[in-house]
Amino acid sequence: MFESAELGHKADKATWARQVPKLREALLGAQGEVLHAARFPVIVLVGGVDGAGSGETVNLLNEWMDPRHITTHAMGAPSEVDRAHPPMWRFWQALPPKGKLGIFFGSWYTAPIVERAYGKTRKAELSAQIDEIARFEKMLTNEGALLVKLWFHLSKKAQRTRLRSLEKDPDTRWRVTASEWKRFDVYDELRSVSEQTLRMTSSPEAPWCVIEGADARYRGLTAGRTLLAAMKKRLADEARTPAIGAKEKAPARISAIDDAHVLRALDMTRTIKKKKYESELEHWQGQLNLLSRHPKFRELSVVAAFEGIDAAGKGGAIRRITGALDARTYQVIPIAAPAEEERAQPYLWRFWRHVPGRGRVAIFDRSWYGRVLVERVEGFCSPADWMRAYQEICDFEDQLVRNGAVLAKFWLTVTKEEQLRRFKDREKTRWKRFKITPDDWRNREKWDAYEHAACEMFDRTSTEAAPWTLVAGNDKNYARIKVLKTLCERIERA
Amino acid sequence: MFESAELGHKADKATWARQVPKLREALLGAQGEVLHAARFPVIVLVGGVDGAGSGETVNLLNEWMDPRHITTHAMGAPSEVDRAHPPMWRFWQALPPKGKLGIFFGSWYTAPIVERAYGKTRKAELSAQIDEIARFEKMLTNEGALLVKLWFHLSKKAQRTRLRSLEKDPDTRWRVTASEWKRFDVYDELRSVSEQTLRMTSSPEAPWCVIEGADARYRGLTAGRTLLAAMKKRLADEARTPAIGAKEKAPARISAIDDAHVLRALDMTRTIKKKKYESELEHWQGQLNLLSRHPKFRELSVVAAFEGIDAAGKGGAIRRITGALDARTYQVIPIAAPAEEERAQPYLWRFWRHVPGRGRVAIFDRSWYGRVLVERVEGFCSPADWMRAYQEICDFEDQLVRNGAVLAKFWLTVTKEEQLRRFKDREKTRWKRFKITPDDWRNREKWDAYEHAACEMFDRTSTEAAPWTLVAGNDKNYARIKVLKTLCERIERA
Repeated sequence: MFESAELGHKADKATWARQVPKLREALLGAQGEVLHAARFPVIVLVGGVDGAGSGETVNLLNEWMDPRHITTHAMGAPSEVDRAHPPMWRFWQALPPKGKLGIFFGSWYTAPIVERAYGKTRKAELSAQIDEIARFEKMLTNEGALLVKLWFHLSKKAQRTRLRSLEKDPDTRWRVTASEWKRFDVYDELRSVSEQTLRMTSSPEAPWCVIEGADARYRGLTAGRTLLAAMKKRLADEARTPAIGAKEKAPARISAIDDAHVLRALDMTRTIKKKKYESELEHWQGQLNLLSRHPKFRELSVVAAFEGIDAAGKGGAIRRITGALDARTYQVIPIAAPAEEERAQPYLWRFWRHVPGRGRVAIFDRSWYGRVLVERVEGFCSPADWMRAYQEICDFEDQLVRNGAVLAKFWLTVTKEEQLRRFKDREKTRWKRFKITPDDWRNREKWDAYEHAACEMFDRTSTEAAPWTLVAGNDKNYARIKVLKTLCERIERA
Repeated sequence: MFESAELGHKADKATWARQVPKLREALLGAQGEVLHAARFPVIVLVGGVDGAGSGETVNLLNEWMDPRHITTHAMGAPSEVDRAHPPMWRFWQALPPKGKLGIFFGSWYTAPIVERAYGKTRKAELSAQIDEIARFEKMLTNEGALLVKLWFHLSKKAQRTRLRSLEKDPDTRWRVTASEWKRFDVYDELRSVSEQTLRMTSSPEAPWCVIEGADARYRGLTAGRTLLAAMKKRLADEARTPAIGAKEKAPARISAIDDAHVLRALDMTRTIKKKKYESELEHWQGQLNLLSRHPKFRELSVVAAFEGIDAAGKGGAIRRITGALDARTYQVIPIAAPAEEERAQPYLWRFWRHVPGRGRVAIFDRSWYGRVLVERVEGFCSPADWMRAYQEICDFEDQLVRNGAVLAKFWLTVTKEEQLRRFKDREKTRWKRFKITPDDWRNREKWDAYEHAACEMFDRTSTEAAPWTLVAGNDKNYARIKVLKTLCERIERA
């Protein structure tokens, strides 16, 4: 992997003087086109060996292009806020929107490589992390991102020379600290782990470009030319075929020969009488309140997602939860069609931004499952998009759970007759009228398609750590208690 | 994942009587079309809980279709021969060619799931295995295979009932042994591990189909209908768009601004004088012979791959190796264009079949790198195909190395002038004339393209465990000693 970057590549002054003006002009032109088209973000990852000039190169790229449309993120050690969230949260926050460039100086590669090189993680753990990264990047490119990955390399000898020369110069002495020399001690381990990681994550969509870092002119020109070539190629590809990644074919599906499915198997006749309801409500709300004040609660977070048939009582159930909580603890996130800012990002971005920190509760009124429900049924995304979403959602939820989130997913449902009754009631009652729209009637006509999508969703995303709870909602009392009780039990177990 | 398969699905006698004749006819028809088209193989994986009827279903499928074009592989514990090879070797051997069906009763999923359920492997190890499986299946589907994955499930209660009823019946008593009850003890662990594994390996190209196994008619019909739907869908897709997976775009590439690359950096002037050569040859051939008789040699295997420029001396170097070995120890595998039987399989298949068992040496005269060299340069495969090949090759080699293979990869090269001299010499000398063809002259015209492909190949496939050795071949003596010496050193280290 690194052989080509240990050849002593060089560019002389004349080459530099001749190339830079042309390169700058071309880079600015390509950046302008990317901005103007606003079709895809450009994500530049910069990594490599200490002293190989990645910092200088980041500065150079900012100098050569229009810095107003570039955000540079120095991803050092995570902050306290970062640490209260899953590790990938801070990278999600920093993703550039379509049309813009984001330069990540240090990235999701840093921790896995360094930890393995120091022997803090095992081989199999690194493999699992690499595969997670590969899936994450696959998602980014499927969502349209152009991913340019630059790795600045130095041979062991070259790194020693470079660190010494930086130390000698009073202007650059500050850049070589004990930690650089400490990392130099594990040069061989770092090299070996980096090689494996880079090799396993060099995909056709997002290959690594390894750049020899010893000669400043060579590395600067090479980084600039690589970025330029990637942007130009992508702009040309876009011009030819606008739609990306929509080619995959849906697998064949059959429905059960006996027409049985989990929603039909739900007992829709269950009810709770008013009096019992009131005492149960008090009990479980009190329980939830106590749990939210428990000292251990500060170490976990709660994510509750509500999905279901229109008029099945999501709002009412959510209000019974929030009614038991201190307003400073929770946030209710209503999910409608994505806003412009959100459409400029990968679809999971608008959920990542609301991922609660430790000690907090986030309640999603509709959720990231929209992609495999409404977007699938209404054709708002391609089959390839919703098919890959199951895996992407499971990865997302897995990250939440590993970070200590209690994840409760509720599907509220009513029978078709009960929905009709509620729709009519809403139309009749003036203060409920805002809740019913022509969309609701249209969705009702697609009842079977929504049920089919929901059943497939349960099958593919109900996991031990993040199970779906199906709630029979014909009786609102029953449904609300079921939701509160399930939530309390899940928190208690955690 | 399993909720839908615990609903008590059933099919009554009337449904069975009505459906089976139609289903059989349709299955036979689809099978005939698959056979006739000979465009893709159908690989059916059958797995699941003991007693859930996977065995009966396999029999049923064989009964319903034309068994001459189905091969069923009961993949139980690996045999002694299997164990002398990498774990995936026996599955490669069993892959059906295009047009045929292969049913795997037990598969590459069995060991990872069972070992994890019994706590023999860690969580991260299972994750890594799952990702390896996902990459393997992605390769199979990219190579055109239709992969149908059937999982037969029973709830814990249903499994207990089923095992007891099998025990009671004298005809089926033999099927329930201590090992079935032992596995029942870890039902919960197996369920949990299977759920994770199935979920993570349900890709759009090859989703799992979970079938409730309690009712024989239901499971038989569902398995048959699933297989039929998958074959019909694929035949219909094929009819619309014959080429599969060739859509991916090649990433942008730039060449180094100083035109330096590893092949140009090779010192081509090195020579060894005749006398010194003779003594060195004797020394290293003796060394190799001793190594091949060492008791520890029986625990490893040697895979040597030779690639390089035409007329660079591959054949001569190989003969210096085989000259030192007992003929019973080694096999030289000359790789030319694939034969018909080989073209009906994934491209790595013809190399897997020659993977040596422990204690054996396999010498490949040209190798699996053809895909990223000649096939790439000559356009024999699509960019998507050779781009994914780097990863697939690394996975392949990783499996060899993990199984104890010493993997030595040699790139023999000569300067353009030296090649011309040798070509002319071959044309002049009668007994060498067979070695020179118009192809050689044509390849020579594409010198730069081949060098470019070779350099990218070194960058992407030279790993610590399987490094490339570049050999300057202008002087044959030097090249031969370099190859022998490298091989001896690699074996010695192992």
